Amino acid sequence: MNIKNKKLLNLVKKIFIKHKLSTKHAEISARALINAEIVGAYGHGLSRLKMYCDRIKKKVINPKPKIRIKKISQSISHIDANNSIGFVAADIAIKKAIQNAKKTGIGLVAVKNSGHYGLSGYYAEQAVNKNLVTMIYTNAPPAIAPHGARKSLFGTNPICFGTPSGLKAPYILDTSISMINRGKIRFASKNNQKLPIGVALDKFGQPTTDANKALKGVQLPIAGFRGSGLAWMVDILSGVLTGSNHAGKVKDPFEDFSGPQNIGHLFITFKTNLFVKDYNNRIKDNIKKVKRLPKVKGTKEIMYPGQNKYKRYKINFKKEIKISKIIKKELEILKK
Amino acid sequence: MNIKNKKLLNLVKKIFIKHKLSTKHAEISARALINAEIVGAYGHGLSRLKMYCDRIKKKVINPKPKIRIKKISQSISHIDANNSIGFVAADIAIKKAIQNAKKTGIGLVAVKNSGHYGLSGYYAEQAVNKNLVTMIYTNAPPAIAPHGARKSLFGTNPICFGTPSGLKAPYILDTSISMINRGKIRFASKNNQKLPIGVALDKFGQPTTDANKALKGVQLPIAGFRGSGLAWMVDILSGVLTGSNHAGKVKDPFEDFSGPQNIGHLFITFKTNLFVKDYNNRIKDNIKKVKRLPKVKGTKEIMYPGQNKYKRYKINFKKEIKISKIIKKELEILKK
Repeated sequence: MNIKNKKLLNLVKKIFIKHKLSTKHAEISARALINAEIVGAYGHGLSRLKMYCDRIKKKVINPKPKIRIKKISQSISHIDANNSIGFVAADIAIKKAIQNAKKTGIGLVAVKNSGHYGLSGYYAEQAVNKNLVTMIYTNAPPAIAPHGARKSLFGTNPICFGTPSGLKAPYILDTSISMINRGKIRFASKNNQKLPIGVALDKFGQPTTDANKALKGVQLPIAGFRGSGLAWMVDILSGVLTGSNHAGKVKDPFEDFSGPQNIGHLFITFKTNLFVKDYNNRIKDNIKKVKRLPKVKGTKEIMYPGQNKYKRYKINFKKEIKISKIIKKELEILKK
Repeated sequence: MNIKNKKLLNLVKKIFIKHKLSTKHAEISARALINAEIVGAYGHGLSRLKMYCDRIKKKVINPKPKIRIKKISQSISHIDANNSIGFVAADIAIKKAIQNAKKTGIGLVAVKNSGHYGLSGYYAEQAVNKNLVTMIYTNAPPAIAPHGARKSLFGTNPICFGTPSGLKAPYILDTSISMINRGKIRFASKNNQKLPIGVALDKFGQPTTDANKALKGVQLPIAGFRGSGLAWMVDILSGVLTGSNHAGKVKDPFEDFSGPQNIGHLFITFKTNLFVKDYNNRIKDNIKKVKRLPKVKGTKEIMYPGQNKYKRYKINFKKEIKISKIIKKELEILKK
């Protein structure tokens, strides 16, 4: 890592410690934020730091959580995160899911009383690096209107699927069910950028390209009824099943300090060699076949999910993270 | 069931027996086809009967398969369907997945050397009726071009998610990753119907509303890169992982008789009460909250996935199945 980025990492860590996180939890959280910056997922990066600190101050994130891991079986665990910062809950959960899968072939770990944990793909990478397939679901504050409704209820509710690829970049699909990520709208709002047409409605149900209006309005789901059904599935898997908030009850972390978010997550992991001996060769072959297809005009390379992010990571890892004036100011205030 | 439909069921069963399926396998297969007709999924119904019989005659479906179930663990099973008709493989697999989940909390069942099994939702219903959550994946012959490619490779690769709903109709999301199901295009082709605009390209990469041209061309994925990534995920889960054909190698059952399809399926099942005691109340509450949202103009009721199909089933169950002239003729020939 670039020396200046290391300094930045340490600064973020210090800020978290100043806000009463343990050294270990501060390290986990700072790394997740810096990683988001490096892969270019700015909506999950430093733009959220002040929010986390505010939530700790207002006692809706617990900086000293007593996280309980309940063993349901050798494969299945239930984690009560005790309103910890989401990064810590997710880090413990994916490690438990990896452990369970290594032991029994499959792991299923549910988390309740958690918060926003950043990028699902970040945790998927951990499982994939241990040669496991993983599926990860989390719910989020209301942002998308169910098909047929004019009020938002589902979060952007990402579907995440990761697997070893047999190639350098792991296959990590981490796709929101929204036409646009809420983090990207927030980033556009912070930086006075316009949104594309057709991704959001304002609070009156009218199309808008104004990020501030979109934040108060409704994001559109991908693929109509289908995308709406997938977002609903994620709310069921991560909210209803795990014992967390659901059906629109997850609070917006930036706007609602009336209580903890109680977000839920679900982590599924399994071994790649359960049914075949040569999984890594099989998937490498699969990906190569797709990449060799004739391309549409203007496409240089057919990319698989995760490939672009991996490239960005490799390039940006040695570069200095650029920080906007607003965030610089926030860091100055937070470290005092 | 309507008496005439029962007669039709028996006719289909007889036809399968005449084509060397065991009485039990003929019963399973006939029921799946008739169910597709009743729920209005005509592309998975009787329009496929001749194809199945043709494939048996040409020895690319094995009418007397030796299906082996390999126990990987108490939770995990691997089924080699020995090129059976897909319905039979899927029926055994979902029953095994149910059994495993009932025993250990979670079931994971992979199937290789199988064929087209009709509607994933049909098997999901079996698990949901046993009070389990289920996720089902299967691959299919090339129909969708990966994002950036102008040649099809992924199948319509459905994502299926089922759960008890606490209400009459179970929550069954069974969504293809294609803008349109291949079965619907085939049905349109058989009945000289036009396709909507924007769902398919012809073999030259040009948009088309001609079902025959679309069958030789490419179907478009939902949501661009995201839908493409989801279709790819399904190919990995059901093809690469299970030891089945993948990366475009699954043969078109109507057109390619050069060998068995070797389709793969993956069934995941788990108990609803692993992490909460009152799952059915929680999900009923979730669904009711969504249904009570203010509606967009023209929407009478916000529907959840599976609700419409359930209604159709209840209405059509007592009605006589309508058969087109083409299919009537096919039945006449097949029963001789």
